[in-house]
Amino acid sequence: MNRQELFDNIRRKQSFLCVGLDTDIKKIPEHLLDGAEPVFNFNKAIIDATADLCVAYKPNLAFYECLGVKGWQALEKTVKYIRQNYPDQFIIADAKRGDIGNTSAMYARSFFEDMDIDAVTVAPYMGEDSVTPFLTYADKWVILLALTSNKGSHDFQLTEDAQSERLFEKVLRKSQQWAGDDRMMYVVGATQGRMFEDIRKVVPNHFLLVPGVGAQGGSLEEVCKYGMTKECGLIVNSSRGIIYASKGTDFAEAARRAAQEVQAQMAKELKAAGIV
Amino acid sequence: MNRQELFDNIRRKQSFLCVGLDTDIKKIPEHLLDGAEPVFNFNKAIIDATADLCVAYKPNLAFYECLGVKGWQALEKTVKYIRQNYPDQFIIADAKRGDIGNTSAMYARSFFEDMDIDAVTVAPYMGEDSVTPFLTYADKWVILLALTSNKGSHDFQLTEDAQSERLFEKVLRKSQQWAGDDRMMYVVGATQGRMFEDIRKVVPNHFLLVPGVGAQGGSLEEVCKYGMTKECGLIVNSSRGIIYASKGTDFAEAARRAAQEVQAQMAKELKAAGIV
Repeated sequence: MNRQELFDNIRRKQSFLCVGLDTDIKKIPEHLLDGAEPVFNFNKAIIDATADLCVAYKPNLAFYECLGVKGWQALEKTVKYIRQNYPDQFIIADAKRGDIGNTSAMYARSFFEDMDIDAVTVAPYMGEDSVTPFLTYADKWVILLALTSNKGSHDFQLTEDAQSERLFEKVLRKSQQWAGDDRMMYVVGATQGRMFEDIRKVVPNHFLLVPGVGAQGGSLEEVCKYGMTKECGLIVNSSRGIIYASKGTDFAEAARRAAQEVQAQMAKELKAAGIV
Repeated sequence: MNRQELFDNIRRKQSFLCVGLDTDIKKIPEHLLDGAEPVFNFNKAIIDATADLCVAYKPNLAFYECLGVKGWQALEKTVKYIRQNYPDQFIIADAKRGDIGNTSAMYARSFFEDMDIDAVTVAPYMGEDSVTPFLTYADKWVILLALTSNKGSHDFQLTEDAQSERLFEKVLRKSQQWAGDDRMMYVVGATQGRMFEDIRKVVPNHFLLVPGVGAQGGSLEEVCKYGMTKECGLIVNSSRGIIYASKGTDFAEAARRAAQEVQAQMAKELKAAGIV
């Protein structure tokens, strides 16, 4: 999916919500565990209940890998289900990969060729040649970690160099030499508040993938206030707040209500910014 | 496996070789492709041919993930095969994971509980709470990226802060607050040469996992000269140089010869250092 298509979807749906499919077998409703494919069936119900309210889905690979072969089957089936039934969805593999060139190329092949996923989150620590293998596919995206939502983001990402440039700023600046805003996005945690102002000084137009709203305590209002651009420039993720809105048999309806609430806030923000 | 057991194995085998199982379906000998499980069969042959010459195996997860479900089956079967037949081997999942706490905990569960792997490579960018979930298992290890073997290692890892501390040094220093040398190792590329001196100033006793000998051009002699400790302190990985030593039906014998050559050099280094 290219940038224009993504923006069109945001305007049409009045939403820049990404639903995080962090599907934990230990947290899904009990009645699903009797079936043969509990993870896929959970995802399918969540997707059917939310697809008109969001523009993206983000399976977090850890939750699938921890189930081994069965987890990969559930992941592949989920991606295929979205592709076939909701082709306007932007699918993000939240994988936080990044390795030497030939290895990153293998990951890229896996996500972009075999699974036809739109974007992969990538960790920048290993530098340019660990990222560029992901940038060779048309209309496929790298979402590079910049300033993450967790407490540990303070350990290294905020380290200033002798020119007072912080590491996350250096990542933002340098990585623009590798690809433009039609192929690269950045992860910036919703918990970072006013830091979005600093982010926008370095990447005024890029889309940002923003986790950390909901369970992690980030504020959608603040994210929009400091991070929104003329073309929205935000994909805001919510995982636990939506997919675990209820633990009962009504989990899909509850997820829909939770997604509706976020989407309504997003519509308001988009209107206030004159985007819709 | 604990530190003492690892060191005992190194002395007994006169080797600190790790064989990297970067098994690429596109590079394995053609005659294996007819069988039902080409990747596992390739790995099995390599393992049987090299197990007495090395102390560790390191499957690189990218090469398995890119095959989807079949790749995971091959990985799980490979790990089980090593565990059952060569219980003295240290198994490293080269995964370069690292995510917010609850997600890292899922990865840890996957590698340490479900697969009974000894160590996982982890990327430090997201800081403490992305690493600590991997540190809660007895005799299981985190191998944290410090100074990698690739060209891109220069992009961020060498960035100096205002106190002239480079990022990789900060990673080495700060992460010692999270665990000691009985649970943490560091990745340092063989291509880094004399930088091992600087590394040893910060982590004098830790084991280092050293990729980059062979195909990537690093020198074993230099690594030993600047990086070896009284207890060896090195696990040196070779992947392509060993597992693709021949593309014919003699691939396993050729891998053995290549591993023997490295092991002989290692024995010499260990003797010169008075370790064996």
